[in-house]
Amino acid sequence: MDFDLQGVIPPLATPLDADGEIDRASLESLIAFQLDAGVDGVFLGGSTGEVALLDARRQREVLDIARDAVDGAVPLLAGAIDTGTARVIDLARQAVIAGADAVVVTTPFYVKPNDTEIAEHFRRVAAAVDIPVIAYDIVSNAQSRITPDVVCELAESNTIAALKDSSGDLVTFREITRRLPDFPALTGSELLADVSLDLGAKGLVPGLGNIDPHGYVRLYRAARAGDRQVARAEQERLLDLFRIISVADRSRVGFTAGALGGFKAALALRNIIKNPATNPPLSPLTDAETTRIAEILAEAGLL
Amino acid sequence: MDFDLQGVIPPLATPLDADGEIDRASLESLIAFQLDAGVDGVFLGGSTGEVALLDARRQREVLDIARDAVDGAVPLLAGAIDTGTARVIDLARQAVIAGADAVVVTTPFYVKPNDTEIAEHFRRVAAAVDIPVIAYDIVSNAQSRITPDVVCELAESNTIAALKDSSGDLVTFREITRRLPDFPALTGSELLADVSLDLGAKGLVPGLGNIDPHGYVRLYRAARAGDRQVARAEQERLLDLFRIISVADRSRVGFTAGALGGFKAALALRNIIKNPATNPPLSPLTDAETTRIAEILAEAGLL
Amino acid sequence: MDFDLQGVIPPLATPLDADGEIDRASLESLIAFQLDAGVDGVFLGGSTGEVALLDARRQREVLDIARDAVDGAVPLLAGAIDTGTARVIDLARQAVIAGADAVVVTTPFYVKPNDTEIAEHFRRVAAAVDIPVIAYDIVSNAQSRITPDVVCELAESNTIAALKDSSGDLVTFREITRRLPDFPALTGSELLADVSLDLGAKGLVPGLGNIDPHGYVRLYRAARAGDRQVARAEQERLLDLFRIISVADRSRVGFTAGALGGFKAALALRNIIKNPATNPPLSPLTDAETTRIAEILAEAGLL
Amino acid sequence: MDFDLQGVIPPLATPLDADGEIDRASLESLIAFQLDAGVDGVFLGGSTGEVALLDARRQREVLDIARDAVDGAVPLLAGAIDTGTARVIDLARQAVIAGADAVVVTTPFYVKPNDTEIAEHFRRVAAAVDIPVIAYDIVSNAQSRITPDVVCELAESNTIAALKDSSGDLVTFREITRRLPDFPALTGSELLADVSLDLGAKGLVPGLGNIDPHGYVRLYRAARAGDRQVARAEQERLLDLFRIISVADRSRVGFTAGALGGFKAALALRNIIKNPATNPPLSPLTDAETTRIAEILAEAGLL
Repeated sequence: MDFDLQGVIPPLATPLDADGEIDRASLESLIAFQLDAGVDGVFLGGSTGEVALLDARRQREVLDIARDAVDGAVPLLAGAIDTGTARVIDLARQAVIAGADAVVVTTPFYVKPNDTEIAEHFRRVAAAVDIPVIAYDIVSNAQSRITPDVVCELAESNTIAALKDSSGDLVTFREITRRLPDFPALTGSELLADVSLDLGAKGLVPGLGNIDPHGYVRLYRAARAGDRQVARAEQERLLDLFRIISVADRSRVGFTAGALGGFKAALALRNIIKNPATNPPLSPLTDAETTRIAEILAEAGLL
Repeated sequence: MDFDLQGVIPPLATPLDADGEIDRASLESLIAFQLDAGVDGVFLGGSTGEVALLDARRQREVLDIARDAVDGAVPLLAGAIDTGTARVIDLARQAVIAGADAVVVTTPFYVKPNDTEIAEHFRRVAAAVDIPVIAYDIVSNAQSRITPDVVCELAESNTIAALKDSSGDLVTFREITRRLPDFPALTGSELLADVSLDLGAKGLVPGLGNIDPHGYVRLYRAARAGDRQVARAEQERLLDLFRIISVADRSRVGFTAGALGGFKAALALRNIIKNPATNPPLSPLTDAETTRIAEILAEAGLL
Repeated sequence: MDFDLQGVIPPLATPLDADGEIDRASLESLIAFQLDAGVDGVFLGGSTGEVALLDARRQREVLDIARDAVDGAVPLLAGAIDTGTARVIDLARQAVIAGADAVVVTTPFYVKPNDTEIAEHFRRVAAAVDIPVIAYDIVSNAQSRITPDVVCELAESNTIAALKDSSGDLVTFREITRRLPDFPALTGSELLADVSLDLGAKGLVPGLGNIDPHGYVRLYRAARAGDRQVARAEQERLLDLFRIISVADRSRVGFTAGALGGFKAALALRNIIKNPATNPPLSPLTDAETTRIAEILAEAGLL
Repeated sequence: MDFDLQGVIPPLATPLDADGEIDRASLESLIAFQLDAGVDGVFLGGSTGEVALLDARRQREVLDIARDAVDGAVPLLAGAIDTGTARVIDLARQAVIAGADAVVVTTPFYVKPNDTEIAEHFRRVAAAVDIPVIAYDIVSNAQSRITPDVVCELAESNTIAALKDSSGDLVTFREITRRLPDFPALTGSELLADVSLDLGAKGLVPGLGNIDPHGYVRLYRAARAGDRQVARAEQERLLDLFRIISVADRSRVGFTAGALGGFKAALALRNIIKNPATNPPLSPLTDAETTRIAEILAEAGLL
């Protein structure tokens, strides 16, 4: 690996056009916006990118567009997220062909693996591709944790090159950064980014970074420079901004629809993408909800 | 739909050779064994078929082999099981091309849909293919329930042609059979098959039917004929046989590895398939565990 | 134990007056109504009796009233439900003093016991009182299951005299009745009472029996007489009646408030108790909800 | 309230003698040890004090001993932890009589309250006693969360005087400290005490403070003085020490037995209490496990 996995690496949304196809212009616009903000990498085809709702063709198209748009400016990470090892290897190989610099891989799901089987999964994926594999702990979606013991085993054997921790569990995150002080443990937390950096995170992978990458870049750089006051102030501003994921009425839409719909509505309101639609079967936001998101953006100085 | 979705329709295992490829001869042998036992349909690419651990190529290969082996003798059901609508539609269309008579579809998973989004998922899949869609409620793997209200809405609008209920919840199953007395509600339960038929199930989709289809066929026919004594006796014998899924040491292997490994070990011991291996990353059973499975088979008069 | 633990043994509601004190007249009325319906026992201070919301004084008062009202006509079961062994022994001894014929005891909760500790809990409670102990498996409230292995160990050592199974898991219930064919395994299920009797249940402990003991008595007697048609018809009628627990708006009240509030509203509407109030902090039902309950009662021929 | 709820307030273990009675000398010794270390309060009858496994008599005895041993030196907090409002009021009044300065109260459990009912619970308890009520969010034991909205409502109405947050959720903890900057939000976390103070915690309630109060006092004072280096170093030492709760073999004992047994074994090894026994039905530790705990204490410089 001839690049560092650190800094701010937002998991990008996947803009769609009115037909549900990838909106190339919007994706290029989003990537340009991110690079302009100074991000250290971009992550396509992650949970925020609605990877689980894309078919293989569009997933590949996202990577093709992203590779050209990024053009080597920063590392390009690609999600290879599926239920089991063989499916993930297929996606990972497709990502290699598309020019990704690393693949991001969750535990198997649907099939209820134990720790041994989770470790074996990562070993087989890593053996199948010659780009780095990043382990992605997102128990709320992928059902199983990647325990600190498994992370350490995989890191020490160079099976995985980094961890994206979206477990929400700072206790295990702290255990990992203590046991592996030089390992790139990245946090997926939008709300505890400053704290995670304090605890040894090497980088941030915040979904909210789609909407305000400048904020996370300032937060990260301030933290690295030891200026905790500035980092804290940015984090607090971002806490308020994160309310956009809670605007949608949960008696009407599911959690993912509300969160990713909120992100995309904000991106559209900021004119970074054209169309706020998410993939079926997620329910769309209402006009009133979108108006509320505009208010939150305005309060955060982003509109 | 010019066939009835009822009777015994086992979800078949997917035999693998030493290289992890589909073992055509073993799959043909398994299907012949099933047809010979008098099953009313076969279900390929379900949870028991390790669908989540197959790549698209092998999943297609399974269907191609099965179509030729079944040769129209009974309906061929194909799993189209993935995280979201677009991926499922891809799999469902592949199943149509391969000659499946119906597709079996779970809720979306990983993306945490609500009821509205689950219903929309089934409507879109049904609109995309012209073979019947069977809703598959397996909350332990697919995370969400399909509620009775959603089942009724989808059944009454002819969106779904049947339900495979592997929820383990007889209360909601009973509610569904009462509200939809003519709808093909099938149960995935190995252990409460007799009870489910009493409560209005139109058929059985038991993983254990791989190993002893004759038993489930006898159970089903006896229940249909009103001979509850015989049905009960068969069910009780099958309860004992089901211990094969609990042989593997759970401190060593995950749940799925133990259950599906147990099924495949039994099939190999009965000489129905050649190789008991499951897909990576599932851990294999030990020799001692296989010996114990042989004992259980012998006790059940199957060896 | 000089009585049989079998038949219909409803877990009685605890009627309160306007001050939240035990309403003696209403409790006497409820017990008379039950005895008149032909129940085989009554269970005071169970989950349906709001035991977790009563203080020790009122819990004792309930038993004193019940003992006099029952007057030896049928066995009197008393809940001894609390977080740990010492607290449960206190309650159990109080029940002995009050004249209970048996105590009903859940697993410890709050303290996350394992199976060994659960078994030890029952052994210590049983050693502390000289009336029979009935194990009560209600995982939804008491957090832990009582596994079939633990039930068998406790039954075979005569530690427990019966099981009340409110786990909702017919698979383990069936395992228990097969392993212990003569053991009084009772079901707490309102909706699968007929099925549970088919599977070997020796009795019924249905909360809905408060409102319609005659129905459960008919169901039970028909099942015992081998008249499955009649049992089924009664069960189906009771399925419809059970809708009273789902009337309350769950965006306004918690599950227990809706369920127990529904029971008490129905009892008040039937003039069996005077006041439908539940204990604080449970939210009361609205007038509109009570009207809806009246409609359901009328449809069931109970008003 | 004429005292500040801040600083280090360990939730004390309840030492038992060989007969399971309260070991007065050991409890006095433990309290003297704590006061000598400079703690700012002591909390008796909490989860760490095995409150759920004590009967009312011993619970009262603990408070009587503690009141005399503390003798006004620091505030004395008493747990009033039970399933419902009436039972909690009984315990809270007993605590008042025993001389407690505040009571610590969880959500109701067993009865599945919603947010409205949880708030009502705290209002009723607060109205029943004239000492401050501290809300205790420990979802892993008490089943329900106390949401930030409920905390704010109860704090702003002066219903609760403080929060002990053992939810493990720093996101909601941060939300609470931001919305209520002057409110005494205390953390129950042993492992993220430094981080919690950074995020606005006013104090620490760590079970591990039984064994090493000096460490938490140093950590707290360093954090208050703005010396983050020292606070971090203490926290890291305490992270290692916390391994004592994971020594017990979880295939043999439950979680609580292992954790509280580990604490008590360490206290006995340090000669602060005499007997490491926990209450039935918790399983005791083995000699080998105790030896391992001694090693961890030695590594931490505590033996």
